[in-house]
Amino acid sequence: MSKNNPMPTACVIIIGDEILSGRTSDANLSYLGKRMDEIGIRLIEARVIPDDEQTIVQTLNQCRHLFTYVFTTGGIGPTHDDITAASVAKAFNVEIERNLKAVKAMDDFYPEGKLNDARLKMADIPVGATLIDNPVSGAPGFQIENIFVLPGVPMILQGMLDGMIDRLTGGEPMLTVSLATDLTEGNLAKGLGQIQDNYSDISIGSYPYFKDGKFGVNLVSRSTSSARLEQLQKELKYFISKSGGNVLLNI
Amino acid sequence: MSKNNPMPTACVIIIGDEILSGRTSDANLSYLGKRMDEIGIRLIEARVIPDDEQTIVQTLNQCRHLFTYVFTTGGIGPTHDDITAASVAKAFNVEIERNLKAVKAMDDFYPEGKLNDARLKMADIPVGATLIDNPVSGAPGFQIENIFVLPGVPMILQGMLDGMIDRLTGGEPMLTVSLATDLTEGNLAKGLGQIQDNYSDISIGSYPYFKDGKFGVNLVSRSTSSARLEQLQKELKYFISKSGGNVLLNI
Repeated sequence: MSKNNPMPTACVIIIGDEILSGRTSDANLSYLGKRMDEIGIRLIEARVIPDDEQTIVQTLNQCRHLFTYVFTTGGIGPTHDDITAASVAKAFNVEIERNLKAVKAMDDFYPEGKLNDARLKMADIPVGATLIDNPVSGAPGFQIENIFVLPGVPMILQGMLDGMIDRLTGGEPMLTVSLATDLTEGNLAKGLGQIQDNYSDISIGSYPYFKDGKFGVNLVSRSTSSARLEQLQKELKYFISKSGGNVLLNI
Repeated sequence: MSKNNPMPTACVIIIGDEILSGRTSDANLSYLGKRMDEIGIRLIEARVIPDDEQTIVQTLNQCRHLFTYVFTTGGIGPTHDDITAASVAKAFNVEIERNLKAVKAMDDFYPEGKLNDARLKMADIPVGATLIDNPVSGAPGFQIENIFVLPGVPMILQGMLDGMIDRLTGGEPMLTVSLATDLTEGNLAKGLGQIQDNYSDISIGSYPYFKDGKFGVNLVSRSTSSARLEQLQKELKYFISKSGGNVLLNI
């Protein structure tokens, strides 16, 4: 993408009381982050919100104007606490209706006699939305404008994302390279800050770790230019050696 | 807390490019969620944002007016990408200064000769803030008004939280009870919805799982009343048996 056409952005809205209560740890954000890097979309925010209609509507209506793409995860099952589809309809001020294509997809998926009324609730989709195929468990997700409504179960989300990734227009892929050292942040900070100043086109992250009784730091560099990253890695290695440290495999 | 004095609320702002890129999974949200339940504070939102000053300032200034308490995690180390303290100062429109109590705490902690200029950056704290002791690694966090600035490393965050938990005023603790069944959500949904209608004071979450080749559902009920939870658990067990399912230990 040219500088006049900046990288498209994305936000993930993680919907679920169980994430906020600490009962369940989200596993979708890191997957989406990696996939967005690959296709050149900058995932720059995530919000975790409860299964509460007013909060979902407000958050959707804020985020859909702030980011190129918005992904929601969670709340599209058959039970009473699955209120995402109805909340999305409300955010767009459209009706929700039994979607016949969704019914067909689920009818093809479920064994005869298993597609009961409760499951059919998952075919209630906002008017004007486009379905997202679910190759794992039948009930589809959907897209409405720049919002993509996906499930919370990681395996199902990943299956759906693969089939709809072509709907997203990205820029240059974001590349990441890492190296680790047995130096500490306190000893690296000054020189590393100078290197960052010289490579202002690259974001260098410094992440301390403590593993197997030893302290160290991972240095993670991100850029769309592999040539610049290679140049930077050489400089970082030289700096670490000069400072009396060892360059380690990324921890 | 009385109904006229509703439960205090909390929001967590997770600051770090590494969480959004998928390199690191956040481990602090679930810990904070559980601790807030224990002390009767409703953790009702989390935001994950990049190491970007403007975004941090804007998010802080939004969230500090929306929630009783705001916790930030990450970005308070000694390296160039640690910009949380400076961003908090900017959000409150105050200066950042070398805090002598913080210097003293770090001087007591580090072995002689190890407290260099880079590490001393961690003693630069917004004017008017109150320190939060760090029993694990020396450099303190801080509180300014209703914002608590904590580190990203879980072990250090947990150590700091223990020492400052008295600064938070909660309501009645939120209690959680769970049971699991080998029925599926599609078969539970209708009856479960009716039970939820009868227990509108309790939030019942339904979470499908697939484990060891078997599908099932965890039913998680949350309330401040242990008596009501006990009553509900009995009803759920009866409903599961009546529907031809087994009540399992929570998965």
